[in-house]
Amino acid sequence: MNPKIKWLRDRINMENMQGMIISNPVNIKYLTGIEAEGTLIIARKENFFLTDSRYLEEVQSVLTINDGIIVNDVASISRDDYENFFLFCENVGFEENYITYAMYKKYIERYKINNFEETEYLIEKQRMIKDEEEISLIEKACYITDQCFKHLCNYIRIGMTEKQIAEEIEYFFKENGADGLAFETIVASGKNSSKPHAVPTDKKIEAGDPITIDMGCKYKGYCSDMTRTIFAGYVPVQIQPIYDLVLKNELQTLKEYKEGASIRVVSKMVENDFKLNGYDLVHSLGHGLGLEIHEMPYINSKNDNVLKANMVVTNEPGIYIPGSFGVRIEDTVLITKSGSINLTKSDKNYIIVANRA
Amino acid sequence: MNPKIKWLRDRINMENMQGMIISNPVNIKYLTGIEAEGTLIIARKENFFLTDSRYLEEVQSVLTINDGIIVNDVASISRDDYENFFLFCENVGFEENYITYAMYKKYIERYKINNFEETEYLIEKQRMIKDEEEISLIEKACYITDQCFKHLCNYIRIGMTEKQIAEEIEYFFKENGADGLAFETIVASGKNSSKPHAVPTDKKIEAGDPITIDMGCKYKGYCSDMTRTIFAGYVPVQIQPIYDLVLKNELQTLKEYKEGASIRVVSKMVENDFKLNGYDLVHSLGHGLGLEIHEMPYINSKNDNVLKANMVVTNEPGIYIPGSFGVRIEDTVLITKSGSINLTKSDKNYIIVANRA
Repeated sequence: MNPKIKWLRDRINMENMQGMIISNPVNIKYLTGIEAEGTLIIARKENFFLTDSRYLEEVQSVLTINDGIIVNDVASISRDDYENFFLFCENVGFEENYITYAMYKKYIERYKINNFEETEYLIEKQRMIKDEEEISLIEKACYITDQCFKHLCNYIRIGMTEKQIAEEIEYFFKENGADGLAFETIVASGKNSSKPHAVPTDKKIEAGDPITIDMGCKYKGYCSDMTRTIFAGYVPVQIQPIYDLVLKNELQTLKEYKEGASIRVVSKMVENDFKLNGYDLVHSLGHGLGLEIHEMPYINSKNDNVLKANMVVTNEPGIYIPGSFGVRIEDTVLITKSGSINLTKSDKNYIIVANRA
Repeated sequence: MNPKIKWLRDRINMENMQGMIISNPVNIKYLTGIEAEGTLIIARKENFFLTDSRYLEEVQSVLTINDGIIVNDVASISRDDYENFFLFCENVGFEENYITYAMYKKYIERYKINNFEETEYLIEKQRMIKDEEEISLIEKACYITDQCFKHLCNYIRIGMTEKQIAEEIEYFFKENGADGLAFETIVASGKNSSKPHAVPTDKKIEAGDPITIDMGCKYKGYCSDMTRTIFAGYVPVQIQPIYDLVLKNELQTLKEYKEGASIRVVSKMVENDFKLNGYDLVHSLGHGLGLEIHEMPYINSKNDNVLKANMVVTNEPGIYIPGSFGVRIEDTVLITKSGSINLTKSDKNYIIVANRA
C-alpha cells in the first residue's frame, strides 16, 4: 500500500473510523496520483477507486501494484456491491467541506452507512507538510516563474497592454515546461495597481507606471506564486516610501518564518508596522500552496496555529492607495526547522523596465 | 425588481417557500449580473447580496436601482442580522446540489432556519430557456468560433504540433473579443483522434491525419461549442464512410431538433443508426450551454424530457475506433417552435488543410 494511503488508514483508525469516502479530486490526486473523475473508497481491508469507462485506462496507467488500489468501473457495480464496501463498518468518514448536501444523502442511501462522520479537513491538514518530491516540484515551478520574470524585465515596453503582458506570461510558462497557469495572472499598471485583485485590461503601460505582476505556474501539478511591483521608466518618488515599507516587512517576515513561529504573531507584526505608518494590510499575509494555489495554512492574524517544517507558504505583504497605486511583493517560501528557504529567487529591489525604446 | 428575480420569487412562493439562499455563483450571475464571491438572499420582502469589502465597489457598479438588491458587507452583519433575514419564514430553499454538507449545517445555525428545503435545480431548469439577450451573446460567441475555424483552415501546416494549434485558438479568441476559452480546447490528430476527450500533445500533424478540433469561447460570459474533424493533405479512404455516417446523423439530428421533440427518441435515433453500422455512440449526443459549457438539458437516451423553444444545445455525434482514429462533428443549435437554427455556420463537408508547403 502506498505510504500516503497507509498514513490515512492509520489516521482514521485513530479516530475510530473503519472506512472513508474521499471525493475531493485534489485529495485523490495527493493520495494516489490519479487525476480522473471518481471516488476513492477506503474500506475495512481494501482500497477501491470507482470511476467510469472514460478513465479506466488512464487510471490503470498511473497506479502500480504497490498502491494497493482496486479499480472498479461504476457501470459494473451493483446495488449489493455498494452495500458491501462498508459492511461491518461502524463509522465511515466523509469530506463534509467537499461533498454537497445532495451527495451526502445519496451516499448514506447507496452505501447503507450507519454513522457518516465529518473528518474536518483531515487530508488537507496532512497536505500542509510537503515531502521531498513535492518540494522539488514546487521548486521547479518557482524556477520557471523566476525565469519568466527575468524574461519580462527585458520584454516589457511602453505602450504594451496589460493583457499582452499577461498573455506573454502564459505563453512563456507553456513553452518552458510548465503545465500552465497556477491561477489567472494579474498585471496591473498605474492606477490599476491599487486594486489587489485586478484583472489585466487593455490599458497601455506608460512611463512612471508601477506594474504589479502576480503570477504562478503549475509543474507536474504543483504551484508557484510570486508578485513583484516593477516600474516603467522610473520610480515615482511618492511610491518609494511605500515600496520600501512593503519590502522591509517582506524581508522581516522571511526572517520570522520558521518551525514553531506563531502565524498570528507574524501576521500581527506586519499589520502593526503598516498601521504605525498609516496603512492597512487589507488581505492575508500569505497562504499555503501545493497541488492547489490556496491551501492550508492561511497566514493571517486569525490563525492560532504555528508554522511547521516542510510547509510551503507565500509571503506577500501589500499596500494599496485607492485610486492611486499599490505595491505587493510576494515570494514562495519553504519553512524549515531553523528558518526559511526562499524558493523565489527574483530580485526585490527597485526594478525599472521599458527604459529603452 | 429585475424580471429574473421576480420570476424566482413567484416560483418559490408557488412551492410554499418564503425565502431562498442562492450560493451557486453561476445562478447569481444569471439572476443579477453579479460576478463576485457572495450569497444572494431572497428574503420575505427584500433581496440582499452578502459579499465582502473586496467586491463591494464592483457589485455596486453592476447593479441598478431597478434590480432591487441591497448589498451588505459581511463584516458589518451581526448575529442578529443573520437571524432577521428569514424571520417569519416557514420554509427557506437552498441549493442542495451546490452547497456542501458543512455549509448546510452552518446556514441552518447562522440563519436559524426552521425548514431548509431542497429546490431541485429550480434555477438551472429556468436557465435552459434563453432570453433574447442571452441568445445574441451565444450567437456572438459562435460567430467568433466560426471565424477562428476559418483562420485555422489557412493556418494549419504539416509539422505543427497539436499544442501549437490549441494555443493559436486561445490567442485568436482573445484577440477577437472573446473573454477567453469556454473549455480546454481539444486538438487530436491521427491516432489521438480516437480518444473523445484527448488533450493536445506535442505530436506533429502528418499528411493523412484526421484532426479533431473541439473548441469554444466565452463572450460576455456565454459559451459556444463546436467540433470539426478535418484532414491534413488528403482524406484517407478508410475514414470516409465513418465521416459520412457521422455527418448524416448530425444533419438528421438538426432536422429533428425542435420544440416538443423527445430527447430520448432523437438520441436513440442516432444510437440505433450507429449500431446498425456496427458502431456505438460512446458519449451523449449533446448538452445545453449558456453561462456554463455543460448545462441542462443533457441530450442522451436516458433523458425523458422534450426540447423547448429557446433552448440552446449542442449536436455532436461521434465515432471512435480505438487505436485508429475518430470523427466528431458538433454544432451549437437554437431550438425554435418550428425547428432549429444552427448558430455554428462552418462547413461540414470534407475539409482539407495543410495542402500547401
